[in-house]
Amino acid sequence: MNDYSSYLSPMGRRLHESAIRRMGTVLARQTDVVSFAPGYPDSGSFPWEELREITQRLLSGTDHEVLQYGPTGGYTPLVESIVPILDARGITVARDEVLVTTGSQQGLDLIARLFVTPGDVVLVELPAYTGAIAAFGNAQAQLVGVRQESDGISLEDLDEVCERHRAAGRRVNLLYLVPNFQNPTGLLLSLEKRRQLLEWAERRDMLIVEDDPYGSLYFDDVTRVEETRSIRADDKSGRVIYLSSFSKTLVPGLRVGWVVAPSTLIDRLETAKQSVDLMSGSLDQRVVYEAIRGGAIERLAPRLRELYRRKRDVMETALRAEVGNLLSWTQPRGGFFLWARLPDRHDDMGLLAQALEERLVFVVGSAFFVDGTGHDRIRLSFSAPTPERIQEGARRLAAALRHPVASEHSSR
Amino acid sequence: MNDYSSYLSPMGRRLHESAIRRMGTVLARQTDVVSFAPGYPDSGSFPWEELREITQRLLSGTDHEVLQYGPTGGYTPLVESIVPILDARGITVARDEVLVTTGSQQGLDLIARLFVTPGDVVLVELPAYTGAIAAFGNAQAQLVGVRQESDGISLEDLDEVCERHRAAGRRVNLLYLVPNFQNPTGLLLSLEKRRQLLEWAERRDMLIVEDDPYGSLYFDDVTRVEETRSIRADDKSGRVIYLSSFSKTLVPGLRVGWVVAPSTLIDRLETAKQSVDLMSGSLDQRVVYEAIRGGAIERLAPRLRELYRRKRDVMETALRAEVGNLLSWTQPRGGFFLWARLPDRHDDMGLLAQALEERLVFVVGSAFFVDGTGHDRIRLSFSAPTPERIQEGARRLAAALRHPVASEHSSR
Repeated sequence: MNDYSSYLSPMGRRLHESAIRRMGTVLARQTDVVSFAPGYPDSGSFPWEELREITQRLLSGTDHEVLQYGPTGGYTPLVESIVPILDARGITVARDEVLVTTGSQQGLDLIARLFVTPGDVVLVELPAYTGAIAAFGNAQAQLVGVRQESDGISLEDLDEVCERHRAAGRRVNLLYLVPNFQNPTGLLLSLEKRRQLLEWAERRDMLIVEDDPYGSLYFDDVTRVEETRSIRADDKSGRVIYLSSFSKTLVPGLRVGWVVAPSTLIDRLETAKQSVDLMSGSLDQRVVYEAIRGGAIERLAPRLRELYRRKRDVMETALRAEVGNLLSWTQPRGGFFLWARLPDRHDDMGLLAQALEERLVFVVGSAFFVDGTGHDRIRLSFSAPTPERIQEGARRLAAALRHPVASEHSSR
Repeated sequence: MNDYSSYLSPMGRRLHESAIRRMGTVLARQTDVVSFAPGYPDSGSFPWEELREITQRLLSGTDHEVLQYGPTGGYTPLVESIVPILDARGITVARDEVLVTTGSQQGLDLIARLFVTPGDVVLVELPAYTGAIAAFGNAQAQLVGVRQESDGISLEDLDEVCERHRAAGRRVNLLYLVPNFQNPTGLLLSLEKRRQLLEWAERRDMLIVEDDPYGSLYFDDVTRVEETRSIRADDKSGRVIYLSSFSKTLVPGLRVGWVVAPSTLIDRLETAKQSVDLMSGSLDQRVVYEAIRGGAIERLAPRLRELYRRKRDVMETALRAEVGNLLSWTQPRGGFFLWARLPDRHDDMGLLAQALEERLVFVVGSAFFVDGTGHDRIRLSFSAPTPERIQEGARRLAAALRHPVASEHSSR
């Protein structure tokens, strides 16, 4: 038996693969590749010694729960320590409004499964995070894009798109957003628009899924912390479901994220999580909890802001020197990504093919667009590579851009 | 806003909660409770020192990948080390036929999502593992039960049920089974029936989902290792999807399980996993790999068989002494569970209420039956409690059974 297609569910048949993950696989198979592709944190920033000491203590054998099954909703002290982290972000919640997830991606998947009836419209930005596109797509949502402006999502377009699809008889309940240093654009949503979004959600009876992995990684030369204030912080009517994780502020290899939602929804998300993976890793959760308790995450945050700001500078300087006449971009104000516009007559797929020849990899812009556009953009991550590799990558990008243009997509 | 029901998907509205997980929560909130409820391994068996040393080495900081994002399909050396583990079980596979999952539960969920179109019939045993019931139920399957006999599933009933539902126009593609020391009955499926099941799957064009968490925990006083040979081992035509994990043979707190399937299906399962949790924990996977490499899992296996066999003996002896005239059961030949039949005029829910008064908890039989029956059964786990607690639990069970019968379910 070789063909299983007749056995598959609709989801099984039209699975959404993440272009970023695919790039990661390409990368892993080659040597001397400069990768601007996956949004990996800088592993040099991981607090190895602290985590080693924590783990040593946890595995002493005195507390047998450390490697045992545990509650689906999360290790209680961890849940309780997320509450003050949220408080520092202006978000006041009780512990029954928090669910620990196996990374933020699981939060997205659980939300998609809980809310999306096949055929529902889910509104996302143009462009949007591919992991969210995959999670909502695999729940059989129809993803509909909303235009962006320099200060984030266009509220006019949002309202127009929402009402147009409702008028066409579709169910439209969810808007997915990354307000802080969006993946892939790095854009910061303005405070004024955040306020207006809450009013809009109330007026149009919508829920907002606010994904905030990068909020604490603002670059203080151009961004004030107040500008990263979450939409959830001012949500008085339970319209916002908020996600975050420790993947960017501690380490991603311990799979610990969380969802904030009204307790009735947390109950349901937790029940869904039971059948999805029973619980997140016991050791992972405890290591993260001890890292919070010992102050590691608080100590790390300013160093990470500084680290990534400097890497952004290295990338901008290198790009200006090597390809400044060809690429254009808006300065990233935080996060991991520089979102570059290609010169006319180049497109993302053709350029990637050339870049691979030069042993450079990045993510094509079109991967982030649910409407088939975006071929004039590429996403360059400056978070993981060293300054020297960033400079080398910029040189390779220049070489790739010098190649004659020839691609099946170049007409787009 | 308090009522979110109008926003929910069909799955969100009718979520399947695991009765076992609920019992675990009840347990966690009380003191001096004897728990025969969750199927937790004995945490005293965890190789603390070895895992501490492994983790110490891994977190030295020399290999930055240890806490970084990694490939969705699993840490390559781990995948490669699962291949010989399977080989020792008679299962010959290539590495592209193995997917690492965040525990076996994730494997079940991915399979459910990949194969179940809402309304599809999925065949399960009467009784069946609640986590599988939840995973298939949350994928909107119609779960249909098949009778068991003393040597496992009834092949006559299986064929009759399958053909009846097909004749009624339903799609029936999947049979879910735990052949080795089934949860909850502890039953061992006979070798003859395993062979017949493969023929049946071929004849009826079915896929078999074979879940094998307990296979290596056979009790050698009454079971030979050859009797645990997996169905997958003799599958020549790609009809069996096999699941297993390290939760029962190493520790459950590191969330590492795996799925074996033809590579075309592994590809799809991996793509589904991308949007579900990106990847399983990097540290967890490496710790498990090092435990395999260092021989820890091989060294543990005979000790675990001996440990759980002795606990079974303790429970059987204690039950015979305390309630031998009231309960009946078949001797467990491996695994974690004793499946007891209640005396007439008792039922599972009423007895559980009485048991909770005595600070004893177990799982009601009816939780495992998709047809609403099973109220004359309870599942008693002997795996986690100490011998003394098992004896104390048996005394409490006797006290609970002495109470007058009064329950809304007692008429069933």
